[in-house]
Amino acid sequence: MSLRAYEQLVQRLHRLSALGESAALLQWDQETYMPRGGTEARVLQLSTLSALAHETFTAPETGRLLAQAEKEEGDEKHRALLREVRFSFDRATKVSTDLVERMSRATSRALPIWTEARAKSDFQAFRPILEEIVDLKRQYAAAIDPGAAPYEVLFRDYEPWIGLAETRRNLAELREGLKPLIRRAASAPKAPDAFAGRWPADKQQQFSLAVLRELGYDFDRGRLDVSAHPFSTGNVYDTRITTRYNEEDPLGALLGTIHEFGHSLYTQGLPREDFGTPLGDARDMAVHESQSRLWENHVGRSRAFWERWLAPMQEAFPGNLKGVTPEDAWRAANVVQPSLVRVEADELTYHMHIALRFEVEEAIVSGAAQVREIPRLWNDRMESYLGVRPPNDKLGCLQDIHWAHGSFGYFPTYSLGSMLSAQLFAAFEKEQGPAAPAIREGRYAPLRDWLRERVHRHGKRYRTGELVERATGKPLSPADFLGYANAKFGALWA
Amino acid sequence: MSLRAYEQLVQRLHRLSALGESAALLQWDQETYMPRGGTEARVLQLSTLSALAHETFTAPETGRLLAQAEKEEGDEKHRALLREVRFSFDRATKVSTDLVERMSRATSRALPIWTEARAKSDFQAFRPILEEIVDLKRQYAAAIDPGAAPYEVLFRDYEPWIGLAETRRNLAELREGLKPLIRRAASAPKAPDAFAGRWPADKQQQFSLAVLRELGYDFDRGRLDVSAHPFSTGNVYDTRITTRYNEEDPLGALLGTIHEFGHSLYTQGLPREDFGTPLGDARDMAVHESQSRLWENHVGRSRAFWERWLAPMQEAFPGNLKGVTPEDAWRAANVVQPSLVRVEADELTYHMHIALRFEVEEAIVSGAAQVREIPRLWNDRMESYLGVRPPNDKLGCLQDIHWAHGSFGYFPTYSLGSMLSAQLFAAFEKEQGPAAPAIREGRYAPLRDWLRERVHRHGKRYRTGELVERATGKPLSPADFLGYANAKFGALWA
Repeated sequence: MSLRAYEQLVQRLHRLSALGESAALLQWDQETYMPRGGTEARVLQLSTLSALAHETFTAPETGRLLAQAEKEEGDEKHRALLREVRFSFDRATKVSTDLVERMSRATSRALPIWTEARAKSDFQAFRPILEEIVDLKRQYAAAIDPGAAPYEVLFRDYEPWIGLAETRRNLAELREGLKPLIRRAASAPKAPDAFAGRWPADKQQQFSLAVLRELGYDFDRGRLDVSAHPFSTGNVYDTRITTRYNEEDPLGALLGTIHEFGHSLYTQGLPREDFGTPLGDARDMAVHESQSRLWENHVGRSRAFWERWLAPMQEAFPGNLKGVTPEDAWRAANVVQPSLVRVEADELTYHMHIALRFEVEEAIVSGAAQVREIPRLWNDRMESYLGVRPPNDKLGCLQDIHWAHGSFGYFPTYSLGSMLSAQLFAAFEKEQGPAAPAIREGRYAPLRDWLRERVHRHGKRYRTGELVERATGKPLSPADFLGYANAKFGALWA
Repeated sequence: MSLRAYEQLVQRLHRLSALGESAALLQWDQETYMPRGGTEARVLQLSTLSALAHETFTAPETGRLLAQAEKEEGDEKHRALLREVRFSFDRATKVSTDLVERMSRATSRALPIWTEARAKSDFQAFRPILEEIVDLKRQYAAAIDPGAAPYEVLFRDYEPWIGLAETRRNLAELREGLKPLIRRAASAPKAPDAFAGRWPADKQQQFSLAVLRELGYDFDRGRLDVSAHPFSTGNVYDTRITTRYNEEDPLGALLGTIHEFGHSLYTQGLPREDFGTPLGDARDMAVHESQSRLWENHVGRSRAFWERWLAPMQEAFPGNLKGVTPEDAWRAANVVQPSLVRVEADELTYHMHIALRFEVEEAIVSGAAQVREIPRLWNDRMESYLGVRPPNDKLGCLQDIHWAHGSFGYFPTYSLGSMLSAQLFAAFEKEQGPAAPAIREGRYAPLRDWLRERVHRHGKRYRTGELVERATGKPLSPADFLGYANAKFGALWA
């Protein structure tokens, strides 16, 4: 009996998925354990895998199977899969394998260059490869849709089903809503210096592992390692997270690990029966980021969390946190203060960092500004949005890995993720009552289960807007985030 | 200007090489850091990579380019590359992608099953998947050459240019030559119990790293990790080794690490200008094993090595090695005694372990014996060759990973490697005088350089026989190994 086109297409997708997962593991290794000298070979490996994936996906046979499957009878899940494949296929077939390979090679080469340039705070060392990447991304956008604004085309790589115009509106509303709060922060009562002292990296790691265990991270399908830039990667069977330890600040690694936990929980909760197809994949970046931020901010920065974890932390780090109360720790974990580094920013000023990147990268991609102008554009905006000016590019425009990865159009999804995390958390509490009592007792199952039910298990079955409405009963907007922020910081600063 | 067929073929080989290296990294990860649950996805990833590599290699386009390149003008290096590609191509095109994929899937699945079966000493748990693998390997051999003995076909996967008949002769001569020595060992003076005590794993690791540094391992292109079964893998840019620590025996990890160092030094010394083609690859298994054994046995088990390293070892492990002399350590590192586990066997009885495996696997592959008979065949031979009988299968037929990997025909290359290591070391000393003084002073550069010059830098440029004759002036034989063994153990037991 011959397989239907749909089943044959799914087999082809499994192969593509395996190629993508292999590349993801090679990238994980590059950022965790690969010896320095390995870059040259790794670059060729990754560009070969992307080229093969691209060739396999854009082969005429894929188009034939896809067109035939679109004509076959199928249920709603089938139609959803075909919708996702059609979207990617129509884009991918417009891009040459040569360009894909060149993008992969450039971004693989860029990683160690960025790492070294950042260490030396030397933007000039990074500039040539960044110019090359920007040029390649513009070629890529022009190949996909020569009539559209290149930035809009790139944005759809991360958010195929959220419009850029809608995003722009939401981000503007968020920014304007946050401004008065950020102004108020300047005159807020000073939080206690609860986290002073030295925090040995090995003990931080032990503590992070203990928190991960209680949150419900499945270590049979995951692990925690160290990398320069924390990330999470993998698939439903093997989802890894990384963090980095600063011995003068335990919050960075702790909240960073909780953040990556949120990503991983999403991945670990994807439907196994759809593994290897878009239906088994996460619903893009904003939804992914809503999961990480929900755990980082709505759990990890909540008062209830510190009521649960302060005592174990005092025990794990003898000598530190002396006389500190849960209330103190909570206040110290929620200091709002303009600062230079996005990943260390508080929940409010964070979105000014995103606004800056959104504007700078759109200007660069559109050609309105040049790569060489980045440090100036960056520093000027930091000053105007947050009143601080980076003393060097390490603390300025070299801090993020994204552009070295070729990720332009990715940053806005962080703010979208925050909005959605607040919207999901509000919906959860509206249905099940306040989350605090369970968090205080270390019971995270109700929240985990609700997220699995409403978000994780659906993969890409619904378009982003549908998924949000099904989960929360309304379209994505910054309203719940602004409500949450006003309530929380109102209480904190009372 | 269009490329010659030769250059186009080389581009194709680069892609194939990148796929192979990607798979190697995925396998390294599977044995070092992969969480347990990752197997299911990893199996699909590895089988996809093998299938794609097989399809790419056996595509009609490869055949066309190869045939055309064979007609083009070219120098000796070109001819060597084409000879190697022709050999592999003619074999590979006879094997279906489906069979390749099934072999990859079976061996990926087998790894965790073998690990657990070994831990529980439960051969029955391993038997079904092993039967499946043997069946697949027989299908594979029949596809390549239905007229030849299947074991001979499989052996050529590891040694394309050494005949099985010649190997059989050499191994028999080796075995017969060793028998009187092994008999003499029974009445040898008892070696001092120099390595008693506990040896903490973390300190063993530090000590192994120090030894590796002095031997000349390039950590910019390598790393040392832990796995259940020590191995080395990678390419000239990124060559990794693994080991395992037994807290009651420091020699296992130390000599094992030196063994893997020998493999890695070979890989790190391959010609970079030929990276990604057979000319940049190692010359098969016997030559690879000659490199590891040369460093493990001719260096690591030499008196001079212990004159160099005993004092640092005493310092690294306070409390151990009290009153031990270099002579004692040397004697203790060279105890000859029939034992159950191959990787812990001494230099002499080791080859009886190989003889056993060679016979058992040939019987299984030829169909003369069945998989279910393995424990009995194994144990009977252990008793007849070495006078010891495994009390369970963990210490018997489940000890090696090779069959779970689908490696049948691989074991004989270990003995061939020992012969060649002695032959190379003898040639080196004949040219440059005794190695001991330099080893005693921790100067390994002369030996490293000689090996690089005579072996490493040639990749697969010469057939194995030619390489051996160029490096040592004569064909491969057990003569130098037997000479070395008689001289060394004669002195030890005097």
